[in-house]
Formats: sequence, C-alpha cells, structure tokens
Amino acid sequence: MADDPLVALAERLQDVCLAHGLTVAAAESCTGGLVGHAITEVPGSSGYFLGAIVAYADEAKVALLDVPASTIAAHGAVSAQVAVAMATGARGRVSAHLTVAVTGIAGPEGGTADKPVGLTYVAVAGPAGSDVRRFGWTGDRAANKRASAEAALEMLLAAAEATP
Amino acid sequence: MADDPLVALAERLQDVCLAHGLTVAAAESCTGGLVGHAITEVPGSSGYFLGAIVAYADEAKVALLDVPASTIAAHGAVSAQVAVAMATGARGRVSAHLTVAVTGIAGPEGGTADKPVGLTYVAVAGPAGSDVRRFGWTGDRAANKRASAEAALEMLLAAAEATP
Repeated sequence: MADDPLVALAERLQDVCLAHGLTVAAAESCTGGLVGHAITEVPGSSGYFLGAIVAYADEAKVALLDVPASTIAAHGAVSAQVAVAMATGARGRVSAHLTVAVTGIAGPEGGTADKPVGLTYVAVAGPAGSDVRRFGWTGDRAANKRASAEAALEMLLAAAEATP
Repeated sequence: MADDPLVALAERLQDVCLAHGLTVAAAESCTGGLVGHAITEVPGSSGYFLGAIVAYADEAKVALLDVPASTIAAHGAVSAQVAVAMATGARGRVSAHLTVAVTGIAGPEGGTADKPVGLTYVAVAGPAGSDVRRFGWTGDRAANKRASAEAALEMLLAAAEATP
C-alpha cells in the first residue's frame, strides 16, 4: 500500500472501480488537480480514470463544465449548488459512470464572514443521482487542499461501493 | 520560497505572469493534474491560473481538447503532434494567453521499443505560436510525473518571460 494516505485511498478506489467496471472523472476547483494527481499516482489508473477538468476561474466553470453563470451569481462559486452543477456538468462532458466535484476556499485569502477559509463542498454524481457534502477545514492552504482531495476520494469510493 | 522545487518553480511562474498580466491554462495527460496542483499550492494563483484539462483517456483528448482522433491514430497519444494539438486545443477552450500540454508514458506499463517508459512531450502555445520538446525520463512513475511537471513549468516560465 502507498505511503501517502491520499494515494492509498486512490488504490482502494481503483480496486473497487476495476472490479465493478466503473469509470471515473473529476471536476476540481480548490484542489487544483490534486484529485487527479493522487488517482494517477497508481499504476493502471488509466483502466478507470478518464480525466479531470480543473475549473479554477469562474469562467472556466461555465465554459468547461456547463455550470450556469446564474447559479454562480446566485449562490457563489463555493456552494452546494455549484458543486452539484460541476459534478453533473463533468458527467455530461465525459462519459464516466461517476464524477466528483470539489469547490472550496483553500486560503489564506478569499474568506468572508459567511464563507470562511476552509469551507468546501464535495459532490458526487452517478447513475443514481447526485450527493453533496459540506466541510469546514481549519488547516493552511496545502492542508485544506489535501483534506478536500481526501474527502473527494472517500465520497467516490463510497459511491463506487454502492453501485451495483 | 517553497520547500518543494515544483512549487518554488510555480512561485516564479506566478511572479512573472502577474507582472506581465498573463493568464495560463494546462492540458495534462501523464501528469494527471500535478501541474495544476503545483501551480495552485501558491496563494494568489487564482490571479493568473484559469484551470487545466486532464485528458487521461484518448477519448478525453478528443472530447475536451479537440485533438483530432486522426492525429492520435497517425502518431500515437504520446507524440509531438498530439502535445501541440493539446496545447492549442486548450487555448481554444480557455481564453488563456499561454497554455502548456504534457503527454508521456509515466510507467511502469505502457512502454514499447519505439516509445519506452519515460518518453514525454511538452508543448507550449501562446500568441507567438507553439513550441514542443521531447524528454526521456528514467525514473519510476512518480518521479517521471514530477520530472514532466517540472519541464512543463520551466517551459511555461520561459514562454512567459519571452512574452512582451
């Protein structure tokens, strides 16, 4: 098993996805590509991982993931609504069985009273619909990115295990 | 300066891009998201980094980056032609001044006599056209991914410094 806990989680995800014949794609904002990086540290990940769309700028969320600009305007880029729109948008762009989306405020800048640094939403979309969870990390930028990527891999793993 | 040499390189890239008013996007295959991850480890990277398209599967290179399927069929996914098509494709999808693309064989599987493990092409596209370089890494999967990401950041940095 890999030393890095993120990569160890990716190994478990790969085992379940290959066993169930599932493909996966990711839509990342605050993690910046870390979810895809962790997944692709594992040899053989090309057997189930199709790719990721790292939509860091709001315009990229609209142009690359079909997130409605009105949803971003109404709820903010870091919201449950945008996380779900990113996950379903990625599923529309890449024909994966399961997609995961992450949007959050890694810090140290960008926090507000309503949406502090560390606030993160992770959504998973699949044939059974979508699910979203809210997290509040308290680390620095690098730690918050890692915590978000870990949550994304764990939600993907749970969804893969629940897929018949 | 960051301890991680990749992140230290991303800090230099950020300084140059912010000083020159340049935006950047990436198209990643074998690095799996590591280029975007390194760039976004630096606070303030949202000031110039728009996003990345991690096109791991060949179909994703076609669907997300407009790489012609005929180019992949004629030259293989790991080729100078596909690297350039990924970089120019990303530039068409995201309105960035500069884009970088990476395609290679991280290993341990996937190598052939003609295209051994470690073979990697990195292309940069910008207003002045595109440039592509060929590398032959000799490390393990993780080391090859890091070497490819480092080459991508270095080529981006050189292109950013050369942009008036």
